[in-house]
Amino acid sequence: MRPADIIAKKRNGESLTREEISFIVRSYTRGGVEDYQMAALMMAIYFRGMDAEETLALTDEMMHSGAVLDFSEFGRVAIDKHSTGGVGDKTSLVIAPAVAATGVLVPMISGRALAHSGGTLDKLESIPGFRTNLSLDEFRSNIKNVGAALIGQTREVAPADRKLYALRDVTATVECRPLITASVMSKKMAEGVNGVVLDVKFGSGAFMKTQADAVALAELMIDVARKMKRACIALITDMNQPLGRAIGNSVEVIEALETLKGRGPADLKLLCRELAAEMILMSGLVKDIGQARDMYDRSISSGAALDKMREIIRAQEGNEQVIDDYRLLPSAARRHEITAPEGGCLRKIETESVGRACMILGAGRTRVDGPIDLSVGLEMNARIGDRIEKGASLVTVLYNDDDRLQAARRLIERAFTIGPEPVEPPPLISRVLR
Amino acid sequence: MRPADIIAKKRNGESLTREEISFIVRSYTRGGVEDYQMAALMMAIYFRGMDAEETLALTDEMMHSGAVLDFSEFGRVAIDKHSTGGVGDKTSLVIAPAVAATGVLVPMISGRALAHSGGTLDKLESIPGFRTNLSLDEFRSNIKNVGAALIGQTREVAPADRKLYALRDVTATVECRPLITASVMSKKMAEGVNGVVLDVKFGSGAFMKTQADAVALAELMIDVARKMKRACIALITDMNQPLGRAIGNSVEVIEALETLKGRGPADLKLLCRELAAEMILMSGLVKDIGQARDMYDRSISSGAALDKMREIIRAQEGNEQVIDDYRLLPSAARRHEITAPEGGCLRKIETESVGRACMILGAGRTRVDGPIDLSVGLEMNARIGDRIEKGASLVTVLYNDDDRLQAARRLIERAFTIGPEPVEPPPLISRVLR
Repeated sequence: MRPADIIAKKRNGESLTREEISFIVRSYTRGGVEDYQMAALMMAIYFRGMDAEETLALTDEMMHSGAVLDFSEFGRVAIDKHSTGGVGDKTSLVIAPAVAATGVLVPMISGRALAHSGGTLDKLESIPGFRTNLSLDEFRSNIKNVGAALIGQTREVAPADRKLYALRDVTATVECRPLITASVMSKKMAEGVNGVVLDVKFGSGAFMKTQADAVALAELMIDVARKMKRACIALITDMNQPLGRAIGNSVEVIEALETLKGRGPADLKLLCRELAAEMILMSGLVKDIGQARDMYDRSISSGAALDKMREIIRAQEGNEQVIDDYRLLPSAARRHEITAPEGGCLRKIETESVGRACMILGAGRTRVDGPIDLSVGLEMNARIGDRIEKGASLVTVLYNDDDRLQAARRLIERAFTIGPEPVEPPPLISRVLR
Repeated sequence: MRPADIIAKKRNGESLTREEISFIVRSYTRGGVEDYQMAALMMAIYFRGMDAEETLALTDEMMHSGAVLDFSEFGRVAIDKHSTGGVGDKTSLVIAPAVAATGVLVPMISGRALAHSGGTLDKLESIPGFRTNLSLDEFRSNIKNVGAALIGQTREVAPADRKLYALRDVTATVECRPLITASVMSKKMAEGVNGVVLDVKFGSGAFMKTQADAVALAELMIDVARKMKRACIALITDMNQPLGRAIGNSVEVIEALETLKGRGPADLKLLCRELAAEMILMSGLVKDIGQARDMYDRSISSGAALDKMREIIRAQEGNEQVIDDYRLLPSAARRHEITAPEGGCLRKIETESVGRACMILGAGRTRVDGPIDLSVGLEMNARIGDRIEKGASLVTVLYNDDDRLQAARRLIERAFTIGPEPVEPPPLISRVLR
């Protein structure tokens, strides 16, 4: 087989065979198919798409490009959650301990902040000492002893995805359903989970701008997972405004800890509860979603979830005292209030701009390996549908650098639309695809 | 500017600005934009196209990526011919000396055989000693002293095209009008010519399969050339059967020499005469195409064209005695006749397959730097519309290796369609675009 012939076939709109996809992924992973050929193929796939069979084959080949974990000998079910990314989404930090406290294994391989969206690894690294770079042996041992671990992508797991993801980022081939599906699902399947609960977001702060796009992506992911004999369901959730109040790194850890303590903002509590309940239901520990919600509620109210978070932090060598003393987390030197220029109803938030503003403050990165400032961030003081007085604070900016503040402020000021007519707040969870 | 943003812009169907195209070409030539980004951009251009302004900008930037020659100080007009490639096309070997003999400068930078189509450089290199790798100084000096020179692409001229062409070949982005146009015209403009006569081929042995595609490509090339203040016209010609009788390397040199001697097959003579006459007319030496044809005819009948060929060969250090003694050229050891399995009218020739058969014999290459056998080739014994007796020879195969003969024979046997109904031979020149 010649790579150029396979590229031409996809370019011409034909479906690739399992053998062709296998050849391409294997040759790319070990060398032989070059980055430039893969880039051309990815762009051809962007335009021509892939059918369900091709997407399944691509996912399966990428999954098997490296180590495939297996926790079945521990005698417990392993379930993960995956979010397609948004602004202020710290659900993993709540869900992992809360679900692990019920007896379900939660092996989470997470990502870093990129573009306007935050990354679980960066947030965790604001906890002094916390190691996200566990070896696979350490990861395995923590899953066995603690029940949950949160780490970054290793060299061993799905190396084809690691290479491809970096390539897609610099060749404008990220926004493509079959490629997103294969990237996410190959990693999750290689993680050794029995099932995955998906949080597929749409709206001004999500990668999918419309609900229809989010549903189509979720359906493809569910189809691939089931053909690979894994349980999979998806919540279609709103990302037309940030999730919770805090955006950044240490500020999001604090909000997640508050939520584990039974406090925290209502929207974040609701989404954590629903995602966690779906994971508990999927694990087979309970019979229906009501029982699953009860089990989650008890995990929080009993303090078991918070204790599990303490265990996770300790097992990953972080300073567990942050749970009781938030001053141990990095904090920004200064605060600035961005206020409403007029009174009215908050109608719309350009959430991607809010995320970008946070990135400009230093909380995110423009390059995969860029440095970040763990202490800076935003606190959202208003939600869509709120009635706002002129001069009331919309956002509190937590910053260290005046120039960055000015650049971020300009973005944030333009991100809010306030008008006279009232507006219904958008529902957080619009659909559950089972 | 970020390369990924420019790729995304084209991917989304927007036109690129002159500044963006300039940034991409310059960064690619000197390093900074990577092969994988260029491959993704080329594939996006394949799907989204480029408008006339973008194509012009791309051509201009590629032209200025290296040295731009200028022969104006020699006080004579420089005209080149370019063919989009076919099977048996040895017109350059006839036209360059014949037109140079009339006083027009003919600086030709040619290519090598690739896929099913032959290459002028390989054909010339079957002349013992002939150097196609002249330096730019030698090229310039030969243009001054001889009036014509035929060389390969150097590192100095249009380096962006050199890099891009190799990339497109392995990423399935060759068949794309704006990219073909920019590749061809950037080289021709950098050659320092005042005008170009295009031979745009269509049919079973051409890269463009339909006349409509050939016309659209020719119109784009003419548009770009004129916006760059160069004269340009195009002949739209038939490539549903090989041009002339000989296909290969030394066998094509012999046929070209025969044509320079006033013999040679009718179709080759006709096309050489029309292309050469258009070049002479474009140079301004004569007032109309009739006078230009007369001048070409005299160049052949007087022996001036053949003498010029002798000069060219000598100036490029080849053995000029080949002109009088074809036995000095490499010749294949064995001959095999492929005969008609039934009588009837020759209705169709899969010319690309015939070209591929010749490649399989050893006359062409599958890789840019692959070895070739200069002695092997084919002689076509029938043309479309001919009445064929059962058992008559269709093709004489000149070969050295039995296995290669067998593989080539299978391709050739399937390439001919003979049927009972008579068929009109296709016209060689279907349109002239001025």
